[in-house]
Amino acid sequence: MKASDLHLKTLKEVPKDESAINAQLLIRAGFIEKLTSGVYNFLPLGLKVIYKIEDIIRTEMNNLGGEEILMAALQPQKNWEQTKRWKTFNALLKVKSQYEQWYALGPTHEEVVTPLAKQFVLSYKDLPLYLYQIQTKFRDEPRPKSGLLRTREFIMKDLYSFHRDEKDLDSYYEKVKKGYFKIYAQLELPVMMVEASGGTFSKYSHEFQTITESGEDTIYHCSHCGFTQNAEIIENKKQCPHCKHQLEKLKGIEVGNIFKLKDKYAQPFGLTYIDFHGHKRIVMMGCYGLGVSRLMGALAEVSHDQHGLIWPAAVAPFKYYLLPVLSGDKKLDQSIKKATTDLYQDLIKQKVEVLYDDRQDVSTGEKLNDADLLGVPYRLIISSRTIKNKSVEIKNRKTGLIKTIKIKTFLKNI
Amino acid sequence: MKASDLHLKTLKEVPKDESAINAQLLIRAGFIEKLTSGVYNFLPLGLKVIYKIEDIIRTEMNNLGGEEILMAALQPQKNWEQTKRWKTFNALLKVKSQYEQWYALGPTHEEVVTPLAKQFVLSYKDLPLYLYQIQTKFRDEPRPKSGLLRTREFIMKDLYSFHRDEKDLDSYYEKVKKGYFKIYAQLELPVMMVEASGGTFSKYSHEFQTITESGEDTIYHCSHCGFTQNAEIIENKKQCPHCKHQLEKLKGIEVGNIFKLKDKYAQPFGLTYIDFHGHKRIVMMGCYGLGVSRLMGALAEVSHDQHGLIWPAAVAPFKYYLLPVLSGDKKLDQSIKKATTDLYQDLIKQKVEVLYDDRQDVSTGEKLNDADLLGVPYRLIISSRTIKNKSVEIKNRKTGLIKTIKIKTFLKNI
Repeated sequence: MKASDLHLKTLKEVPKDESAINAQLLIRAGFIEKLTSGVYNFLPLGLKVIYKIEDIIRTEMNNLGGEEILMAALQPQKNWEQTKRWKTFNALLKVKSQYEQWYALGPTHEEVVTPLAKQFVLSYKDLPLYLYQIQTKFRDEPRPKSGLLRTREFIMKDLYSFHRDEKDLDSYYEKVKKGYFKIYAQLELPVMMVEASGGTFSKYSHEFQTITESGEDTIYHCSHCGFTQNAEIIENKKQCPHCKHQLEKLKGIEVGNIFKLKDKYAQPFGLTYIDFHGHKRIVMMGCYGLGVSRLMGALAEVSHDQHGLIWPAAVAPFKYYLLPVLSGDKKLDQSIKKATTDLYQDLIKQKVEVLYDDRQDVSTGEKLNDADLLGVPYRLIISSRTIKNKSVEIKNRKTGLIKTIKIKTFLKNI
Repeated sequence: MKASDLHLKTLKEVPKDESAINAQLLIRAGFIEKLTSGVYNFLPLGLKVIYKIEDIIRTEMNNLGGEEILMAALQPQKNWEQTKRWKTFNALLKVKSQYEQWYALGPTHEEVVTPLAKQFVLSYKDLPLYLYQIQTKFRDEPRPKSGLLRTREFIMKDLYSFHRDEKDLDSYYEKVKKGYFKIYAQLELPVMMVEASGGTFSKYSHEFQTITESGEDTIYHCSHCGFTQNAEIIENKKQCPHCKHQLEKLKGIEVGNIFKLKDKYAQPFGLTYIDFHGHKRIVMMGCYGLGVSRLMGALAEVSHDQHGLIWPAAVAPFKYYLLPVLSGDKKLDQSIKKATTDLYQDLIKQKVEVLYDDRQDVSTGEKLNDADLLGVPYRLIISSRTIKNKSVEIKNRKTGLIKTIKIKTFLKNI
């Protein structure tokens, strides 16, 4: 893609109304735009990242046996009355139709997926069942000021599992844990699993936290035995309750959480099945959340330097950022431009994702700065120096290492 | 995919609370579920169709130079005050945060995309600009009773174009018309372009209507000169104003509409650019809508028979519906099953989209009915008759034609 076709515009100034580093960088690099407090628009580059994160998640969900569906955001009040959450769910945004009906603007989908599962689940033969969606959710956050980490509207993957008994739920729950770690590995996001409140139904739920100073959550961790809990549930914050070693206090961004719901939602909606012996039994449920837009924010938050974003290859909007560096010598510059265009065409032919910075009214210095700011994994430069022996200069955004190789060799080994 | 993995469950009965044929069929076939009046969930098969429609639209939008973005559903009240539509837009669903802010739940995005464009558009060099999204929209419809054709929550593609002058807008508008017809052609949806109200800013807007008895819109058409207008704007409904021939009255489902907005939204938001001569000028805008979920409903409405849905190949959830028809003879049935499984494996290897109806507790009669109900383009049967000479029976869902060919030949020519 050409930068001119993308209408690429970056900002030099840090947006004044953003204190979170992820929002500052993503806005400056033109990935997102702030519509209003806690609500963002995704611009072309940002949406590319979102789609790539979604695809990684989708593949893993399908590997876990998940069937993809898409549930509505407008959820009838009566479903929320049934679980007694209409008045108690603090962050619930409520919408009133002119025609007397009230809706909850879905912050989660237990109230929709549980009655929906009744149409799939009749007997033990229909279980287990795994339904997931990637969908836009809403939460009435009090003071959203963490960029994409805490917003009133966000994209989320939510998976719901339905089981014959607790044993089957337990075993699937462990599988999902592994699946989540596979996702984080592809995102190159270091993540720690943390015990958190299990509500009234389970001893613990589990959060996946990426450790960073700017994280909103506090975690206590024992480096000796591995004990790790969210500060919210820990009583003695000095000593590990298992091995008595001193606990370490860490800050983290929650980038996923999983719960054993057991019969919490199956009960109010009467989600039952007929077992092998003809007896009616309650369905056991689990739910597994993963914030797509939050993951994008978390990546920006933990993977950047003073020059800008540093995307992992799997979700970068482009793999290469290509630009010519001109010399001022007319004839030489013509061949530099031609070599750059040729390389661009070759990369496009090979279906390599490349951003060709062909902007006319932007200086080389600005282009180099933008290449760093955008965080594309590799920067390719053709200059008076490289043109001599038909080579290209490659800079690794993450390591900063630069090497020059023959264009032919580069294209062959791509 | 195997029907057992899909938890495929169809309904024999027509849902009592649905009068629209599209909703009746889509619910019976397990493509959608009604959550509440005018709000539907998309089940695995339905979501497959949605994604395929989206991909067709996306490709055409990219061909038209569109850059894909994703704008928020929560739109600040002040943006709607600025265009004076907060109180006048009838179907606007409004949401109040506990923290004093009001939002419009986006039924359209002029109030968001116009201020957004300001960050891309500074000079004439930044124009034209084409931004589109595929996103969930909301409308407070009075009495939604047309299935997916009129809902309170729906998926829509909306494209917005930004131009230096009216001439450029006019020429792009004509390009989009052609692009829309390409989309309908791929969907095998016969569509007629109809003149409709242009509001206060243009003489006409244009609607794309698929003609069907169950359509909500009334259209007058002159088969002599081609004059076609929506009944809403036509004065003399008997005679063609151009050639005086008698007008024909038709019913249609609107499956797309395009508007020349000119400076209607650019004015209130001050969307201007600096022209070649250094003068400030107002940006000219166009907007182009296409309902994704409505297209799915329209396809169901116009393409079905008494047995069920008939999907065009481009959006069918699967290309083939494969099932074994057993004979009762144990040994023969073993080879029928094996041949079916082998064919399934071969198709999967070739990445062909096939649904293998492997359900154990469902009779052959029911499976054959489901194959028709689901509307998959081709049904494949392996039976005692076909197994003898290693062939498979292929039925074309649309034409009803059946032919039997060698499995080898079938696989070769797929």
